[in-house]
Amino acid sequence: MTQEVIDYLKENEEQLLQKLHTFLEIESVSTDASKKQEMEKAVDFLTGYLRDIGFTTVERKDTGGHPLVYAEWTGAEDAPTALFYGHYDVQPADPYDLWDSAPFKPTIRDGKIFARGASDDKGQVFMHLAVFEAYLKTQGSLPINVKLVIEGEEEIGSGNLYPFLENNQELLKADFSLISDSGMVDKGIPTILYGLKGFTGLEVTLTGPNRDLHSGLYGGAVKNPAMALAQLLAGMKNEDEEITVPGFHDGIEELSVGERKLMNAAPGENFVSTTGVPEEAPEKGFTAKEHTMARPTFEVNGIFGGYQGEGTKTIIPSKATAKITCRLVPGQDPTHVQDALVAYIEEHAPKGVHVDIKREALSAKAYKVDPNHPLLEKAAESYSAAFGRETVFVRLGGSIPVVETIDSLFGIPVVLLGFGTPEDNLHSPNESFPLEHFSKGMEVLATYYHDVKNV
Amino acid sequence: MTQEVIDYLKENEEQLLQKLHTFLEIESVSTDASKKQEMEKAVDFLTGYLRDIGFTTVERKDTGGHPLVYAEWTGAEDAPTALFYGHYDVQPADPYDLWDSAPFKPTIRDGKIFARGASDDKGQVFMHLAVFEAYLKTQGSLPINVKLVIEGEEEIGSGNLYPFLENNQELLKADFSLISDSGMVDKGIPTILYGLKGFTGLEVTLTGPNRDLHSGLYGGAVKNPAMALAQLLAGMKNEDEEITVPGFHDGIEELSVGERKLMNAAPGENFVSTTGVPEEAPEKGFTAKEHTMARPTFEVNGIFGGYQGEGTKTIIPSKATAKITCRLVPGQDPTHVQDALVAYIEEHAPKGVHVDIKREALSAKAYKVDPNHPLLEKAAESYSAAFGRETVFVRLGGSIPVVETIDSLFGIPVVLLGFGTPEDNLHSPNESFPLEHFSKGMEVLATYYHDVKNV
Repeated sequence: MTQEVIDYLKENEEQLLQKLHTFLEIESVSTDASKKQEMEKAVDFLTGYLRDIGFTTVERKDTGGHPLVYAEWTGAEDAPTALFYGHYDVQPADPYDLWDSAPFKPTIRDGKIFARGASDDKGQVFMHLAVFEAYLKTQGSLPINVKLVIEGEEEIGSGNLYPFLENNQELLKADFSLISDSGMVDKGIPTILYGLKGFTGLEVTLTGPNRDLHSGLYGGAVKNPAMALAQLLAGMKNEDEEITVPGFHDGIEELSVGERKLMNAAPGENFVSTTGVPEEAPEKGFTAKEHTMARPTFEVNGIFGGYQGEGTKTIIPSKATAKITCRLVPGQDPTHVQDALVAYIEEHAPKGVHVDIKREALSAKAYKVDPNHPLLEKAAESYSAAFGRETVFVRLGGSIPVVETIDSLFGIPVVLLGFGTPEDNLHSPNESFPLEHFSKGMEVLATYYHDVKNV
Repeated sequence: MTQEVIDYLKENEEQLLQKLHTFLEIESVSTDASKKQEMEKAVDFLTGYLRDIGFTTVERKDTGGHPLVYAEWTGAEDAPTALFYGHYDVQPADPYDLWDSAPFKPTIRDGKIFARGASDDKGQVFMHLAVFEAYLKTQGSLPINVKLVIEGEEEIGSGNLYPFLENNQELLKADFSLISDSGMVDKGIPTILYGLKGFTGLEVTLTGPNRDLHSGLYGGAVKNPAMALAQLLAGMKNEDEEITVPGFHDGIEELSVGERKLMNAAPGENFVSTTGVPEEAPEKGFTAKEHTMARPTFEVNGIFGGYQGEGTKTIIPSKATAKITCRLVPGQDPTHVQDALVAYIEEHAPKGVHVDIKREALSAKAYKVDPNHPLLEKAAESYSAAFGRETVFVRLGGSIPVVETIDSLFGIPVVLLGFGTPEDNLHSPNESFPLEHFSKGMEVLATYYHDVKNV
């Protein structure tokens, strides 16, 4: 029976890819207020597709922000119910000039689909829809019951998803949750994530003079906000990459020798060769693998102030801004960490500037699940069968805040079936997804949806 | 005789202002490659005007960059020759949205002309031309001989002016030099500048990964270039505003108690109220007046890297850049200072990033002239007569590199007849120039051109 499904997916791969291209062409950048129409297009695509293949309930849900799509197919008696989560919104595509092909014109080359969202997360959401199509067309039914929540605000903090989940607990009742919004440790290596990082952040703007000033006439009279910002930031992390903000590390468990060994043994990318940096830069006392998987981070995502054009402009900038986000590990409370950052900035902001802090609305605790849970073991079997390799279990540095929310709201295990690769350029120019993972991944899902019904 | 000239200027003020507006409407932004046509327009305006009023030689000189205007009127036998210098190029006008009226649509309100270049330097160049017009129309001659050099590259380093001056020393021979590209310590207070700062600078870019990276997947593996830049900059100036780059201060003479007293006694603006900063931020051990007039500065003119748009983008930026310029005081050698900055950056650049340094081509030594020179005393008399107040002698923090060049090439005194005010918003949005300074300033010039012939 699963074979028919897999055959359908193979025979119709061209058509499915065409449909995926249509989805990827939609510029559903959630952070860009001018793309509201595109967000609606993405919703129409999803609801249209789900209705076409026979989902019984398909709804566009207004949220106050970008709408989300809810759908269900619940015709499998005596079978468990999976709550599938995904997102149809994508990161901004700039800087456009670094893309080899246009971000919203999906292009296939070197065995990959290049497009914004190819991996994160449209491509992976689409694989589930295609598997549902294959089941419904060939079997007339799905092996288990499925409830889908596909939101449009993942890249801007899922602010409206959480109330939706909280207010619809009866509707969304399920036995476990399924998410494909992550990747494998390397191309072709089946990977189960059993831990994710949490998240918090803020934006700080230092304002000195009420306008840009002539550096000759005012240099020496007023504090330079760009220099003030540099001094402030430099106090928050030292050259050993240790975050020096008091309270930041509160609650973190020490990494055990055993888990460190596991992390360092896991296959992974060579960061120097994949990113072009002259050398790795993990926190002192930890390897890059340990830091990315299991130590918190503090990153300046953007810094700006003053003149950025060609040539020289001899000014003292009026203001300077840093956008900061942190990835958190189990034990850290996001609000406590954000408070600690705010307290540090307020206490240490250089004299001579006004301080303005915008707290990032999104926050999430880190998440960790028992890697021996039967749902994960079954997933590992499906992966290993399709990819012909043993599945590895890892923690990763990315954040999927919804995982922690589903865990705490519904008390159900969350299975993270990721198919991306480290070469996908998530959030970067030239985002891509390997065609091989598209076909093998659908095979994994076809098998897993079938096998999981008896867990 | 001078009275006829002054009367002419008063009677024709409306027409002269109209002509000035035409000059200010030209978008002669020298740093902007797309404005080449506008630069030519400015040259045409100047050469046309000078020919109309009767200058005997009026030439557009190709320079390899933006052209400069050379003109002379040398019909005054047995009278000294002045070498006048000015510039027709202006700073970029961005950010445009902070202007109350369009930067290139001169607008009069509150007794001021608002336009980019109103004060720096088109407005002040124009005053000399108007005085020449008044002399030639009413007297048929100028009281002294005049050679004019008006360049189009002052705001981008005067790279082609210096070879021109060097290669035309016979042509430009003069007894003294006259420049109006500066201001008074306050509105209505006649001011003679007897010292200016020098200048050097550079741009530093730190590159980490070869693309923006997902902060979750790579945070902890690679150095964040924006944080690296913050750490680098923070090491170059401490929180006491002391520049901490070894070698930076080499050669600086200590400020005498007497000169410090003079500086602090000079009238000047209240930096807190004119700029809106919460407090002044001079170097420890110096007042804001002392620092702006006579201590070197290190300013970050611009800083940028990573995401600057709305909302959050959870990336590690590929690179981060700081544009830096320094104002220098007598005793400092610009090349030595630039070398010291480069050496510091190369030695202290954080690990894990590539360093790229672009040296600023412009550099200039600081300049100081004897405030008791008869040429300056005569200027002070003209000022005091027109403005009805005693003239003050000050050093200012701005740089006019050409002053140092003229001094060293021609060995002649440079008289700085500035008419701007601290409220002019030089290099900032809403640049302006007071109408009162326009009329009284022309009176000063009419008198000075006459009286200076017997010095």
